[in-house]
Amino acid sequence: MNNPSKIGVGVIGTGRIGKLHIEHLSQNIPDAELIAICSLDTETAEIFAEQFNIPKVTSDYRTLLDDSQIDAIIVASSTDTHVEICQAAAEAGMHIFCEKPIALDLEQIDETLAIVEKAGVKFQVGFNRRFDANFRRVREAVASGEIGEPHILRITSRDPAPPPIEYVKVSGGIFLDMTIHDFDMARYLIGDEVVEVYAVGGVRVDQKIGEVGDIDTTIITLRFQDGVLATIDNSREAVYGYDQRVEVFGSKGMVAAGNPLTDTVTFSGSEGNRTASPPDFFVERYKAAYLSELQAFIQCIQKGTQPLVTGEDGRAPIVMGYAALKSLRENRPVQLSEIL
Amino acid sequence: MNNPSKIGVGVIGTGRIGKLHIEHLSQNIPDAELIAICSLDTETAEIFAEQFNIPKVTSDYRTLLDDSQIDAIIVASSTDTHVEICQAAAEAGMHIFCEKPIALDLEQIDETLAIVEKAGVKFQVGFNRRFDANFRRVREAVASGEIGEPHILRITSRDPAPPPIEYVKVSGGIFLDMTIHDFDMARYLIGDEVVEVYAVGGVRVDQKIGEVGDIDTTIITLRFQDGVLATIDNSREAVYGYDQRVEVFGSKGMVAAGNPLTDTVTFSGSEGNRTASPPDFFVERYKAAYLSELQAFIQCIQKGTQPLVTGEDGRAPIVMGYAALKSLRENRPVQLSEIL
Amino acid sequence: MNNPSKIGVGVIGTGRIGKLHIEHLSQNIPDAELIAICSLDTETAEIFAEQFNIPKVTSDYRTLLDDSQIDAIIVASSTDTHVEICQAAAEAGMHIFCEKPIALDLEQIDETLAIVEKAGVKFQVGFNRRFDANFRRVREAVASGEIGEPHILRITSRDPAPPPIEYVKVSGGIFLDMTIHDFDMARYLIGDEVVEVYAVGGVRVDQKIGEVGDIDTTIITLRFQDGVLATIDNSREAVYGYDQRVEVFGSKGMVAAGNPLTDTVTFSGSEGNRTASPPDFFVERYKAAYLSELQAFIQCIQKGTQPLVTGEDGRAPIVMGYAALKSLRENRPVQLSEIL
Amino acid sequence: MNNPSKIGVGVIGTGRIGKLHIEHLSQNIPDAELIAICSLDTETAEIFAEQFNIPKVTSDYRTLLDDSQIDAIIVASSTDTHVEICQAAAEAGMHIFCEKPIALDLEQIDETLAIVEKAGVKFQVGFNRRFDANFRRVREAVASGEIGEPHILRITSRDPAPPPIEYVKVSGGIFLDMTIHDFDMARYLIGDEVVEVYAVGGVRVDQKIGEVGDIDTTIITLRFQDGVLATIDNSREAVYGYDQRVEVFGSKGMVAAGNPLTDTVTFSGSEGNRTASPPDFFVERYKAAYLSELQAFIQCIQKGTQPLVTGEDGRAPIVMGYAALKSLRENRPVQLSEIL
Repeated sequence: MNNPSKIGVGVIGTGRIGKLHIEHLSQNIPDAELIAICSLDTETAEIFAEQFNIPKVTSDYRTLLDDSQIDAIIVASSTDTHVEICQAAAEAGMHIFCEKPIALDLEQIDETLAIVEKAGVKFQVGFNRRFDANFRRVREAVASGEIGEPHILRITSRDPAPPPIEYVKVSGGIFLDMTIHDFDMARYLIGDEVVEVYAVGGVRVDQKIGEVGDIDTTIITLRFQDGVLATIDNSREAVYGYDQRVEVFGSKGMVAAGNPLTDTVTFSGSEGNRTASPPDFFVERYKAAYLSELQAFIQCIQKGTQPLVTGEDGRAPIVMGYAALKSLRENRPVQLSEIL
Repeated sequence: MNNPSKIGVGVIGTGRIGKLHIEHLSQNIPDAELIAICSLDTETAEIFAEQFNIPKVTSDYRTLLDDSQIDAIIVASSTDTHVEICQAAAEAGMHIFCEKPIALDLEQIDETLAIVEKAGVKFQVGFNRRFDANFRRVREAVASGEIGEPHILRITSRDPAPPPIEYVKVSGGIFLDMTIHDFDMARYLIGDEVVEVYAVGGVRVDQKIGEVGDIDTTIITLRFQDGVLATIDNSREAVYGYDQRVEVFGSKGMVAAGNPLTDTVTFSGSEGNRTASPPDFFVERYKAAYLSELQAFIQCIQKGTQPLVTGEDGRAPIVMGYAALKSLRENRPVQLSEIL
Repeated sequence: MNNPSKIGVGVIGTGRIGKLHIEHLSQNIPDAELIAICSLDTETAEIFAEQFNIPKVTSDYRTLLDDSQIDAIIVASSTDTHVEICQAAAEAGMHIFCEKPIALDLEQIDETLAIVEKAGVKFQVGFNRRFDANFRRVREAVASGEIGEPHILRITSRDPAPPPIEYVKVSGGIFLDMTIHDFDMARYLIGDEVVEVYAVGGVRVDQKIGEVGDIDTTIITLRFQDGVLATIDNSREAVYGYDQRVEVFGSKGMVAAGNPLTDTVTFSGSEGNRTASPPDFFVERYKAAYLSELQAFIQCIQKGTQPLVTGEDGRAPIVMGYAALKSLRENRPVQLSEIL
Repeated sequence: MNNPSKIGVGVIGTGRIGKLHIEHLSQNIPDAELIAICSLDTETAEIFAEQFNIPKVTSDYRTLLDDSQIDAIIVASSTDTHVEICQAAAEAGMHIFCEKPIALDLEQIDETLAIVEKAGVKFQVGFNRRFDANFRRVREAVASGEIGEPHILRITSRDPAPPPIEYVKVSGGIFLDMTIHDFDMARYLIGDEVVEVYAVGGVRVDQKIGEVGDIDTTIITLRFQDGVLATIDNSREAVYGYDQRVEVFGSKGMVAAGNPLTDTVTFSGSEGNRTASPPDFFVERYKAAYLSELQAFIQCIQKGTQPLVTGEDGRAPIVMGYAALKSLRENRPVQLSEIL
């Protein structure tokens, strides 16, 4: 039976991220009650339901929208379903946590955000890295003036291995599927809007990525409204593991978050000193951040506060992604105002 | 209803460690089913029962021993109850996970271990640090010969703040309540028996500790059977946080585990570079290790294997503790063979 | 008396760098004999001559060119004198070590390099950072294939404090006086030519720098012929000290050189851990590199080998500097082929 | 000709350390003038004299004592000559810098110190590590109260490779030839006297060392007058290089000096991260410290101040060495008051 003081939640999608949300909602967020999960992969959904004691399973997301025990839904299904589900959920009065990207089409995003606003429901986008303790500490140092006025931002973000080529074909390309996180991180860390993007890139890792029209290596320069300059570099393949670092340089100092390592052990031998690698990939690296973002989402419903990642935060990096793509194609800096 | 393929578990004790075990058994060990908890603090027990959906609560541990759904018990009650509970549990045919120390009295320990052996039940002692990924990595490096033949072992173990003076009075003193972990770590990392102990110590942190007959600062030298030499240093108060480091030096190199830090952030300012502190204390530092030891315990029951921390492993550090105490009092190296 | 087996050297200029060369030639390079120094600041020259036992002092560089004991000259006078001195020295058959930049005018550089080539004398440009042991190690890792095929290069180069505004007025601007080192470093580390430059920048440190037409903060993107992408960031003022780091990312790994610190000491207190700052500025940071470059120069004369920094290496970063300036002004990527 | 404002110096001994002093006096200490060197190895002495422009060479140290240009002598000849030379030099009114150990015989040391005191000359002992910038910073942190009241001192000191067995035979053993530096470091860092020593040790590195009656691996426990406890560990062979670390733990924090590395480069690959090794051995590691100690010696002559390492500082570690030896042989803690 639904505990009335808890937020009833339904999760749509049982892929890697969906599973993580299901796990966290079942075990680690006492203020939430996971009422139902929805997936086209009914077999996996049944397994999760049994494993995590989830009362209801469905393959039709509309069932969740009709469920009076459910206050909020987590949209972790494939990107092409986000708009329809979010719009229907908003109209059903449900709070929404939507994985990134909301959509690849800006008009659809705008339409969705308008419906959400009209419905007055909470809407949080899944930029989980904002909830990473290291990056949050960096943000605090910038926001509090600890490093003075920020001047330069550097972000390095490199995946351990490229995604399957089938994914690359539909993901919208490196800027919209990978750099999008860094675009969000840049806005988050500096607390200002980007006005101009310049991107260079190439195919260095795998020719197949080039054959489907994408790049795998890129350096992007950003200019913020207030004059901060930023550089982001991305690669689809870092053999030493998932590399996620940021550095903000300002008038009073610098704050930087390095990679965590899987252990604290150092070997010293005739070849020098050797330390461990970073965690394998995003699930390991950002597990605590995935939990934190859901906790924050549940809390903003309970307290009636603004989500920490808004619809506009979900939209802006998409605009930056299109600007980067245009910049790459035309080999010139592109103003964000040129996009839509 | 009890799932027959799972190990039914009862937890005795709802203090800090008891709670951790209850949490892990409820949420993170699918192969275990937490059937009942027992505590003299019935109020706390009821709260945990509700929070973690535990079917049964009792204030009499014998209730657990009579419960046919329960295969194993976790003894996390106060030290003075361990012997009685362990003996009764063994006689009831239950597998036992017992927090350290088994007891402060060596005869009682021997009696208990004899009963356990006769009963043929699994018996694992709660030296959780063996399950810390960093220390395990160090052990592997030693065991695999990665650093050649070990020559020197260094252990630093310093608490962030002294325990309450009431605890110091009954704990058996620093060697039996604090260094005991390092004695175990020394045996674990080197994989050999200690034959001689020399301890120096003093009261440097808090005079009250001296007034109740204990010391708060100590350096202990160990000599292993095969000739490895070790030095352990302990303090009851490190203002920079929980300091737990080990280093093994051998003929082919050195392997060392440093302190993890709470974040990966570095500040650079006119005063130099600043990084974070270690986690506050043992619950934060060793959370994953506490989980791992219980997983290993459940697994050794399921697979019928030997526990990774045996009764003898529980006994040896107590002997070393008494040797250290004798060494401190008589200011001379003491052979372990002098104790009992 | 001149030892015939040694290379006789004359130094022109007694500023900060000139003094360093004088010191190194007097004390640390047994294969060189410092015969004479030349400076318009005759008082300082006299002091150095006495301090370092230098036989001859002059205020007219032509005196050096007529001296049969002198085989090579070190040009460390102000930039506007380089061309005249280098041309006259080459025509006098002297080997030349010239501080960077050779000149700010590309035609003058070309004319000078042509005269040098015709004269057949050695000509080395003072890009001292190539001789830093850390950066050399990075170059070796790239050249040897240790990190596979290079994909991304990152250079951070930030001064501890801006130069006097009078210097900024005549230095040619940040790209030609500061970034020039990073342009050289980029070519050195990757071992390939840059074809395109894009620069963004602003005045963040000191408005006075803007008033004389320069910027103090910049991010520059480079594209190499073979496709490597690079990002350089510069600031005129890092309050935590001279910040000089490079990182090369490739298909088989990453190699990075961090900042050396002035000591190896760590303080741990309730505020976390604290370490030292980098050396104050270039004289401290690159002292050994300044010595190495002179040793290499003397050696290339003795052995008749090619200097490790050629005239072309002196010219290319100037072209990149002009490309960066054009890019900044026109806010577009500039091909190096557009410059002369 | 001797410059009257400079201190005239003679160096006795042209071995590894003697050469270093000759080099420093010739090149880096403007306030000293190296007048003469003395060595039984006249060939080497002649080479140095030419290389460093030293006016006089002799094989009889008495020649130096008669030389009116010489104010001070540096005794870097073999240990068995120290006493005779120091006594004669003191009686000749010369200031003395004597390499450690002054002698292996305590009575001879006392006799020498008495003569020195009567003569009123400066007498500094060559404990160069006190002048290492890292250890000096640690000492400052202790002396200034930055870490509060010191509680625990840890010193690790391991050589990269054992000395020739012929040296081991005459060196006085590991305590008097190797640990002696750590005994001095302990007194220096804590600023207090040691009252008790306990040593354990064994032959782990090379059986030949055992055959000549020495050990190669040791852990030593020290107790200071004011209650600080210390642990020192030594090995004759660390395959990863010269390992020299100290750590002082106190009521307000910890200060530790780690090993410098030969470069700042990190490689990241599929095996984790790799950094460089420490400098090879003492000449590389302590070069700057060797220079600083001589500068301080010259300065204390010029200013008439007390040397920073006194005769008593030279004597105390010898006493500690004998106490350690007695402790090792009798396997018990030994009071320093038991020695002489």
